[in-house]
Amino acid sequence: MAGKDVPVSPLAPTSWPEIPAVPGVRFATAEAGIRYKGRTDVFLALMDKGTKVAGVYTKSKCPSAPVDWCRAAQKGGKARALVVNSGNANAFTGKTGKQSVKATADIAARAAGCKPGEVFIASTGVIGEPLDASKFEGVLVDCAARAKDGPWIDAARAIMTTDTFPKVASRSVKIAGVDVVLVGVAKGAGMIAPDMATMLSFVFTDASIKAPALQAMLSAGVKTSFNCVTVDGDTSTSDTLMLFATGAAATRGAPTIAAASDKRLKEFKAALDDLLLELAQLVAKDGEGARKFVEVRVKGAASAKSAHRIAMSIANSPLVKTAIAGEDANWGRVVMAVGKAGEPADRDRLSISFGDIRVAHKGLRDPGYDEKATSDYMTNPHVVVTADIGLGKGAATVWTCDLTKAYVEINGDYRS
Amino acid sequence: MAGKDVPVSPLAPTSWPEIPAVPGVRFATAEAGIRYKGRTDVFLALMDKGTKVAGVYTKSKCPSAPVDWCRAAQKGGKARALVVNSGNANAFTGKTGKQSVKATADIAARAAGCKPGEVFIASTGVIGEPLDASKFEGVLVDCAARAKDGPWIDAARAIMTTDTFPKVASRSVKIAGVDVVLVGVAKGAGMIAPDMATMLSFVFTDASIKAPALQAMLSAGVKTSFNCVTVDGDTSTSDTLMLFATGAAATRGAPTIAAASDKRLKEFKAALDDLLLELAQLVAKDGEGARKFVEVRVKGAASAKSAHRIAMSIANSPLVKTAIAGEDANWGRVVMAVGKAGEPADRDRLSISFGDIRVAHKGLRDPGYDEKATSDYMTNPHVVVTADIGLGKGAATVWTCDLTKAYVEINGDYRS
Repeated sequence: MAGKDVPVSPLAPTSWPEIPAVPGVRFATAEAGIRYKGRTDVFLALMDKGTKVAGVYTKSKCPSAPVDWCRAAQKGGKARALVVNSGNANAFTGKTGKQSVKATADIAARAAGCKPGEVFIASTGVIGEPLDASKFEGVLVDCAARAKDGPWIDAARAIMTTDTFPKVASRSVKIAGVDVVLVGVAKGAGMIAPDMATMLSFVFTDASIKAPALQAMLSAGVKTSFNCVTVDGDTSTSDTLMLFATGAAATRGAPTIAAASDKRLKEFKAALDDLLLELAQLVAKDGEGARKFVEVRVKGAASAKSAHRIAMSIANSPLVKTAIAGEDANWGRVVMAVGKAGEPADRDRLSISFGDIRVAHKGLRDPGYDEKATSDYMTNPHVVVTADIGLGKGAATVWTCDLTKAYVEINGDYRS
Repeated sequence: MAGKDVPVSPLAPTSWPEIPAVPGVRFATAEAGIRYKGRTDVFLALMDKGTKVAGVYTKSKCPSAPVDWCRAAQKGGKARALVVNSGNANAFTGKTGKQSVKATADIAARAAGCKPGEVFIASTGVIGEPLDASKFEGVLVDCAARAKDGPWIDAARAIMTTDTFPKVASRSVKIAGVDVVLVGVAKGAGMIAPDMATMLSFVFTDASIKAPALQAMLSAGVKTSFNCVTVDGDTSTSDTLMLFATGAAATRGAPTIAAASDKRLKEFKAALDDLLLELAQLVAKDGEGARKFVEVRVKGAASAKSAHRIAMSIANSPLVKTAIAGEDANWGRVVMAVGKAGEPADRDRLSISFGDIRVAHKGLRDPGYDEKATSDYMTNPHVVVTADIGLGKGAATVWTCDLTKAYVEINGDYRS
């Protein structure tokens, strides 16, 4: 199995911020021994009565059993518990997988003192292996007994597969003058698991916001965050992002808000967007084998949508990503990736920059091109590639990492 | 510069077939010193009066100057000369590039004794570097003087960039009882050049077929050949496939055929399709760093188009390709690639096989799954992955290669 000796990403944060408790949320982690030994692999969060939930799930036509479960449970409108396990994705496990999710919800409901339909479940790890729900039996009861309001980094650790560092972030904002917090944890995208890719992220807040408003804000927020990061263009069967609002801040006078358009949510919305972006960028920084964090900015496109597609074409191009790994300012490959995006583009209006250095302008190499300065720039751990399409006002930014030999090594599992 | 010490692909043919002359075509190659030293980098073909031409070009919105030229020249309907150079793609070179193509056509026209509009041009190699057309000045006159009807392998060699072996194939068929030949050369796709990807292929025949019929057959043939191979999903600014028909077989009694639907073309069409497929597969076998030739078969899809899209999603998935490089029968990644294709699919009807071994069936691991037998199969140099979607009758097959560390090495150019 690959991933064991993988060093921590050089792009990992050097310190972790102080993460506050979220009133209305208690949690614990445990070693259920699902696949890994000597590390936690289960995260159970318990939420107060009245907790509202929103979710965004994989677009895969072959979603995992837990994704099917969450989509259905969300319709009930109530959330009291979240169970996340690493080591087994419970994906492509057929009827057994469905039964396993149901059994897990039953166990969690007994542990949490709620209904199974109020339990949300996410699994990440190996695909196609039956997940034995009985492993949760004593574990979740024990977790419920030990549950407290921190430390969040433990939650981030328990959901890791081959992530090289835990991902957690928080924000504090006011709603109508009352302080509320947002805390989020995430695990890596870009197929970090040895057998299956999965991006999971869970955000908790004590704000009192009704489900439709939560959903609207989450669906909007994902567009400029998680939907703007890519590692290899592959999409997991299990990708899940959920937002839970306990409403505990109401006891301190926070209003209950029903509509996402409510002006009192302005600061909260900005904080949510920002939190999602931070988590998404942490995911890209832990892309398999990543040595460089790459920001792709597209401007001057025919529309924002067109700009996003061009940016993703650049960010997913193996040739662009290997060039960046090699610290090679190979702007020809950026031209290629713009050209293949299938979006309006005109070679003779196109300009490309690495950082602040414009390397190509209006259809040919920039007259002031300086090989030395450009090469020096490419040694940075954070590389910004800008493509100005020169056609309109559409702009978009996406984030990715470079494509190194370590990516192939991690994913190739080189049996011998 | 990468590519210098790259060993010949282990998937290269072990011998080359006898390639016949094509009546009406003479050619020569030369060392113009455009970029490489000590090897040929120019291929000039001269074709008899009356030669008809068809072409299929890159869909890139940022095509190279030679692609623009060929598209325009094709409207004239006459072909007398083809100039191909390696070492410089003359792409993203602005007005200079356009002038350079024009100058090259002028030089070739003088050498060939034809009009510039009857000259076709293709360039492959570095992007963004001005191509000095004066390098062709003496070279093309000399080539024209030396031109003869073989050996074709020399033509295949002159157009190589970082291809590790020359690609040439031929077919002999009858049209209305008269023997005609088809000979094709190709150079690699999958961004084999150190700075830019390009797939070039040129097919010559002595059949007497009018341009609209040629074009119809070429456009149809590309769909089941070159459009079904992929190395990394990247698309060159310069991809070009051309078919030239000299009509010389008419002197031996072959009829001149105006419509692609003409029944007398049946055998020719099949031979053309087959030749294009052979060339396309040679290109995939020489994908950068390739160690395994991968055939992806999709059946049971909602339509043929849907099957093709799913097959390309599998063939372009970095996770599937790295797993194959690692000889890992990781069918979970095939499920992932089916799921992300955006096409109709139902997890619980999906079956996946490696070779003849069915590893997953109707939504879960095949009950008869044999790890040892599957692992043994994965050591083959030619791996067949089949996904049966279980929904309809749509089928498609595409070809690719594995994704190895050598791909990253070749494209990363690891400056240090």
